[in-house]
Amino acid sequence: MNKFNFFNPTQIVFGRDRFDELDSLVPKDAKVLLTYGGQSAKKYGTVDRVLSALKDRVVIEFGGIEANPKFETLVKATEVVKKEGVTFLLAVGGGSVMDGTKFIALASKVSEDKFEGLLFNGFTPAPQDEALPLGCIATLPATGSEMNAGAVITYKNQKYPVMSPLTFPKFSFLDSDLTKTLPQEQVANGVADAFIHVMEQYLTYPSNAKIQDRFAEGILQTLIEDGPITYNDYENVEARENFIWSATMALNGIIGVGVPQDWSTHMIGHELTSMYGIAHGRTLAIVFPSMLRERKVQKKEKLLQYASRVWGINEGSEEERIELVIQKTEEFFNSLGIVTKLSHYDIKQDELDTVVSNMEKMGLTALSETGDLGLSEVKSILEQAY
Amino acid sequence: MNKFNFFNPTQIVFGRDRFDELDSLVPKDAKVLLTYGGQSAKKYGTVDRVLSALKDRVVIEFGGIEANPKFETLVKATEVVKKEGVTFLLAVGGGSVMDGTKFIALASKVSEDKFEGLLFNGFTPAPQDEALPLGCIATLPATGSEMNAGAVITYKNQKYPVMSPLTFPKFSFLDSDLTKTLPQEQVANGVADAFIHVMEQYLTYPSNAKIQDRFAEGILQTLIEDGPITYNDYENVEARENFIWSATMALNGIIGVGVPQDWSTHMIGHELTSMYGIAHGRTLAIVFPSMLRERKVQKKEKLLQYASRVWGINEGSEEERIELVIQKTEEFFNSLGIVTKLSHYDIKQDELDTVVSNMEKMGLTALSETGDLGLSEVKSILEQAY
Repeated sequence: MNKFNFFNPTQIVFGRDRFDELDSLVPKDAKVLLTYGGQSAKKYGTVDRVLSALKDRVVIEFGGIEANPKFETLVKATEVVKKEGVTFLLAVGGGSVMDGTKFIALASKVSEDKFEGLLFNGFTPAPQDEALPLGCIATLPATGSEMNAGAVITYKNQKYPVMSPLTFPKFSFLDSDLTKTLPQEQVANGVADAFIHVMEQYLTYPSNAKIQDRFAEGILQTLIEDGPITYNDYENVEARENFIWSATMALNGIIGVGVPQDWSTHMIGHELTSMYGIAHGRTLAIVFPSMLRERKVQKKEKLLQYASRVWGINEGSEEERIELVIQKTEEFFNSLGIVTKLSHYDIKQDELDTVVSNMEKMGLTALSETGDLGLSEVKSILEQAY
Repeated sequence: MNKFNFFNPTQIVFGRDRFDELDSLVPKDAKVLLTYGGQSAKKYGTVDRVLSALKDRVVIEFGGIEANPKFETLVKATEVVKKEGVTFLLAVGGGSVMDGTKFIALASKVSEDKFEGLLFNGFTPAPQDEALPLGCIATLPATGSEMNAGAVITYKNQKYPVMSPLTFPKFSFLDSDLTKTLPQEQVANGVADAFIHVMEQYLTYPSNAKIQDRFAEGILQTLIEDGPITYNDYENVEARENFIWSATMALNGIIGVGVPQDWSTHMIGHELTSMYGIAHGRTLAIVFPSMLRERKVQKKEKLLQYASRVWGINEGSEEERIELVIQKTEEFFNSLGIVTKLSHYDIKQDELDTVVSNMEKMGLTALSETGDLGLSEVKSILEQAY
């Protein structure tokens, strides 16, 4: 395996009905900005329960953080933080709310002229030494944002990664009851998102990192087993908890240390979300199988390992096993009600060139674990995914 | 799975030849106590390399922390800390040095009349709010001390656990080159120790915690594959690094959250070390197979899962599979040159009663994942292990 650093100081509070413990985790004298998304956090009473658990702390609510959170919205929240002297951020929601709150945490400690610059560092940590502390009450298992230091922010209709070790949540509550109000479609998206997160750290080329490989395979197997159960049976708490913990483990760093990574599916998927508003997890399920077919030579050894260890596919030629496991992967997404072809959406085939040229404008011209996936391969992937 | 909290803020610096990075991890103005064990850290130049990497910081050396570190030795080190105004502890060594340094970190912030009390909290965190910060340069993959908050300290010839969230190392360097001077015997002990750590969090009763189970199985498989390679081939860096990362993962909390645990093998093993000086890992390998035989009814389901998933044993009656996998486990230890019977040591069979009565004196009368393993079962385990 390669050299690596691993650091993840987020405290996880896992299990049902533990909001009372917020009182010991949020500083007593904190002035809290409580961030959330649309109506569900309010409607289902989560916001009220959090307010009650925060006792007599001063709390300012900031709702309306949208899916694929927008820079402009987060700037407004940051203005509230600065005006009101907020000292602690508490995010109640899914990946978008948690990601957006991380941006607020960083922006709150710099002047307004630096806000845009926070978006343009790529995967380099934000160049500042201080951020507001934040905690999370996670309501959607998917992005892993509850236990990592990354965020994705939408600016002028493009998605930008924002990173900083200062934005690890101090704590995250993972309570399966909070996820029971999610529509089935969002459960499916979460399973797909977590699944692809694992794959992007696993399905590259062999580096003899056995712990990372086996942990990745264990998460995949668990998602394959308990993702569909959670999707179909809202009363199965055990499966739901396994799914939640899988999604967190998928992107908290533990399977990604010391191994090559290939985030090309995410990069292409982000563009599809930006252009067509297709939900993030669904774009990944569209791109990923075609990406595997495009890259089956470069990824041959790990594809065969994936086929054998995760799906028990050991018969047939290498070519047959690889095609079969890609089909199995597609069928898995389909079983969650996720279509894996672009043609199912209102997209014309001749628009694929625009997707490619937008990626070129973003500088995304050398993707994959070795940087050898260029725009012509992106075009080919999109055509296969049509 | 059960409710749980997970928190582990230790930064891991993994890979060869990275001592230069110490300079950015130890505070510039730190006054450092450099702790180590016997002669090897000096003889092989590790201490000198660390001193060089610490540049012009004031460093006081404290060598001589013995295996199964003694209270008296650590009190001496604490006196040096207090007298010299040390502000940072840097442990260079294996589990004993790291454990001992954690004790020093706690003792340094309380008065001398509190030192003994630190030993008698069992698995309850030490009742104090402050400890000296510490870092580790780990030289022996085994105990997991490099990435957890626990220590085991010997006092009046008994072993006592010491816990505190304040004693998570700030950082730990895991450099496989540092482990190459270990004698084969210590490599074997380390593999056994890590293997049993996993088992004590895994081999209990089913709790449908799929991620934890699969991660545990992944560590076991990796130890089974790469433990013997590391033992036999000192030049195989890849296997050695997988073994090192396995040992850390075995006891950093990740596989133990939300599941029942059974530390009875450790409790019995500690007594054998205290009475006969048998190396820790070896005592575990002696006790564990007999413990499994004693508890094969209570542990039936997980034994069958272990047999199938880790060893591929799927044929035969349940009884046969269970006996076979216990044999396989014993043979695995034997393949590392570890004998698994007490009769191989200079111990008379009629002394087993003394082991039991010593455990009674320590209050260890209700072991196992359900607290139903009493002294008569301990006696039976020791007899089977003779």
